This record gives sequence, C-alpha cells and structure tokens, in this order.
Amino acid sequence: MPEFMDVHEGMTGITPEGLAEAHQADLDIQDSEGVNFKHAWADPITGKVFCLSEAPDAEAVKRIHERAGHPTDQVYEVPVQA
Amino acid sequence: MPEFMDVHEGMTGITPEGLAEAHQADLDIQDSEGVNFKHAWADPITGKVFCLSEAPDAEAVKRIHERAGHPTDQVYEVPVQA
Repeated sequence: MPEFMDVHEGMTGITPEGLAEAHQADLDIQDSEGVNFKHAWADPITGKVFCLSEAPDAEAVKRIHERAGHPTDQVYEVPVQA
Repeated sequence: MPEFMDVHEGMTGITPEGLAEAHQADLDIQDSEGVNFKHAWADPITGKVFCLSEAPDAEAVKRIHERAGHPTDQVYEVPVQA
C-alpha cells in the first residue's frame, strides 16, 4: 500500500488532547476509504501538523481529512524512504 | 530528547539510492551534534523530503543537514504526537 505524508497549517497552540481528538476523528472514518493513519506529529508553535498514512491514493487521504474537519491539499506520496 | 520534523524542497526525481546516500551523510556526522536521524520520507514527484530526528534543539538539526550538503530552514519541533 502506498504511503503518504500530509501537512496541515494553522494549528497553532494544538494540545495533546486536541491532536488526539483530531487523529481519532480520522481513525473513526478511515476504513471507508481504505486509509490507515499511522502517526501524527504537531508543532504547537508554528501550527504545523504532519500525518503519515497508508492509502490507495492521495485523494483518499484528502477525503478523510476533509470529512474529519481538517482538510489539506498538501498530501505527498512518499515511496522513497531511508 | 526533543523530536523534530524537517522538510527539504527541490529534490525532484530523488531515487532510493540518492536518499540513502543523503541520509547516510547525516548519520556519519550526527553524533557531533547529539542528533539522531530516525527516518526520511521522500516524494520524487514534488521533490519534498521529510526527516524525523531526535536532537538537543532545531539548530543542531540544521547544522548537521547543512554540513551534510542539504541545508534547510524548515525544522519543526514536534512535541505533540498521536
């Protein structure tokens, strides 16, 4: 399954509870698109959030994030890893 | 130890061998700054590369990447994770 890294902006001040809640909102509906969100990393200072997932394609990742209430257009397929 | 996600741009067409070489260049010198690069994800289409590390601070991450030949100013501390 292809892997993706996506980036959210503007989540300045995000707390562990806030990220857990946002992440859970993805997990709750991800099966409907065959997506598996694996991890999320957040920087409360700049408001950047990075999410790693497995998915059929980038559009599926976008649809889940949009339906969960935190849309982003920044979804990158990352087939090359080290 | 704090964790960091950093982002590189412009690595369009990066290959597994190219990423492995760049990553190894970081690994070879990371001890000098107390940095531990844990993983790198690359998108050859857009040229984005994401690196996860543990380090004393963001400046240490920047110094290693600069000395290894792939500088970036986009280094984000990611204390909030899910």
